[in-house]
Amino acid sequence: MAKRLGERTLLLETRPRILASAGVAGKREADGPLGQRFDRIFDDTTLGEGSWEKAESKLLLAAAQCALEKAGLQPEAIQAVFAGDLQSQCTASVFGLRGLNIPYCGIFGACSTMAEGLLLAALAMESGGFSAAMAATSSHFCTAERQFRHPLEYGGQRTPTAQWTVTGAGAAILAREADPAAPYIDKVQIGTMVDLGVTDAGNMGAAMAPAAKKTIADFLRDTNTAPQDYDLILTGDLGRIGTDLLRELMQREDGVDLSEKQHDCGLLIFDREAQDVHAGGSGCGCSASVLCCDIIRCLREGSLKNVLFVATGALMSTTTFKQGESIPGIAHAVLLKGGGAE
Amino acid sequence: MAKRLGERTLLLETRPRILASAGVAGKREADGPLGQRFDRIFDDTTLGEGSWEKAESKLLLAAAQCALEKAGLQPEAIQAVFAGDLQSQCTASVFGLRGLNIPYCGIFGACSTMAEGLLLAALAMESGGFSAAMAATSSHFCTAERQFRHPLEYGGQRTPTAQWTVTGAGAAILAREADPAAPYIDKVQIGTMVDLGVTDAGNMGAAMAPAAKKTIADFLRDTNTAPQDYDLILTGDLGRIGTDLLRELMQREDGVDLSEKQHDCGLLIFDREAQDVHAGGSGCGCSASVLCCDIIRCLREGSLKNVLFVATGALMSTTTFKQGESIPGIAHAVLLKGGGAE
Repeated sequence: MAKRLGERTLLLETRPRILASAGVAGKREADGPLGQRFDRIFDDTTLGEGSWEKAESKLLLAAAQCALEKAGLQPEAIQAVFAGDLQSQCTASVFGLRGLNIPYCGIFGACSTMAEGLLLAALAMESGGFSAAMAATSSHFCTAERQFRHPLEYGGQRTPTAQWTVTGAGAAILAREADPAAPYIDKVQIGTMVDLGVTDAGNMGAAMAPAAKKTIADFLRDTNTAPQDYDLILTGDLGRIGTDLLRELMQREDGVDLSEKQHDCGLLIFDREAQDVHAGGSGCGCSASVLCCDIIRCLREGSLKNVLFVATGALMSTTTFKQGESIPGIAHAVLLKGGGAE
Repeated sequence: MAKRLGERTLLLETRPRILASAGVAGKREADGPLGQRFDRIFDDTTLGEGSWEKAESKLLLAAAQCALEKAGLQPEAIQAVFAGDLQSQCTASVFGLRGLNIPYCGIFGACSTMAEGLLLAALAMESGGFSAAMAATSSHFCTAERQFRHPLEYGGQRTPTAQWTVTGAGAAILAREADPAAPYIDKVQIGTMVDLGVTDAGNMGAAMAPAAKKTIADFLRDTNTAPQDYDLILTGDLGRIGTDLLRELMQREDGVDLSEKQHDCGLLIFDREAQDVHAGGSGCGCSASVLCCDIIRCLREGSLKNVLFVATGALMSTTTFKQGESIPGIAHAVLLKGGGAE
């Protein structure tokens, strides 16, 4: 049974284990610092499909199938999948996964989706009714640009605060029965929306940083821990602006220095200078692919022992933006521990 | 701990109880057969706001606040809310609920959202880490028409198979500690997508009926029960076309006669002939408001003892529709029992 620590954090007694995970990505992501660590790389970001939307669905399916292969499982072994994406009505997930016939819970947390999916899958496992569940999400630069900004053909200029939506997807399979050396989910926290009034849809990092700050501060308070108790506090995807703001807010309001331990998926996935991505990477697929291809592997191999994963989302649409609404941020937390850690 | 029955259904041991619920609606809904049973009625469907989107957010907030009042709880007593809606990026829920500061999990199940929210809240309760959680959703005729079809000013003609999106919202609060006479969630089933190739976005009932059929058939098989074991099998929102298809599919493929026990929220909320709503009501707010204002009250009072609630969703967007994709349907099941039932 899950146990509440402090006000908002839950300790999971059953230690849902990550049986396998996979991160897939496009060419630009493969050209970045994580290079060839992705489980699959698609040099052609159409994935041979006739629309970007279909390409993104295929990307998500590729991540899910790759995770299933690594786990040695057929889709029918998965008792629930928690998935969502940035496309309106979360259709990349729907059309990507409909052929697998896995019981499906659609979720929407914008770029926080991987953390939301993991924590919901972990809570489902903790309820006792599931022996295996999946969390999955995706993003595609071209679907996001068309939907949220301008048609690509328009060639609009990007502001320096803008982030580059990752073409990528991640999927993780949680299982009750797994190698005791497999990484597990130790604690989770459902985030609360924070809206400090940012209205610039070209500066998502600023909109999301206060939510990341609140979730991390709540987590440290509830667990009576400090940044040095973690190998890594992995936010995603705040980018350069959001990361600086998060560290400043933590220092000023809580006197906590995050600089030694915090890294951001939006900064890990691209070389900002060489790749011309302005403030860094973004999109559900950013933190999902970084976590699922690289971080979980490090946890499995033992080079990381405990990672506080805090994916962040900007809960806006083009309609709310055009109607002058500000951008509420959210951040969910998942504490992952390596097999050897206690 | 939840126990798996058969392949897909879960029995919840902790019996998460519905402490309170509220259904709110607009003028047309209040003019229908459920009349004055709604907890709040808004004759002015702008709710005094400058946009339909803001009006829908206010509608959702009204349902949440009304449920909190009936439960005698402040928002800070709720440890998680599971909410979503039909607006792209689920913004009615985000902007409706952001002021309450409740830990927020965004979900997207189209018109199946109320069942998805209830089952996720129930699984969260069953995990042991929550003492109170909320499920909430909304829809608004004018936001849905503008987003999915045409601007209202265009005055487009509706086909006979079309359904009328309900202006309404529902919220339910689950609690671990509650009056033992309060209704509780006994069993849940996460639905699987079913897509038989319907491409007519003006005939959602036909797109969703096969998913409802699958979920109900799986539930009856897993629990070894028949329709006569229930006081009511409440689908929502299949409307006239979808209801007829569901009954025909059940009869033909499983030899099961649903006609005595099955009713549909889309047919209960409007008088189809008198109110000119064609095939019936639809929208997340349809099944949510009917369940939360009327059915849960009947369960509380004892006039209904066990209700299998099967909300249905059409997982499409205007983009997938315009790209010629078919419409995957989904249906989640929640078995509600009245306080006195075993």
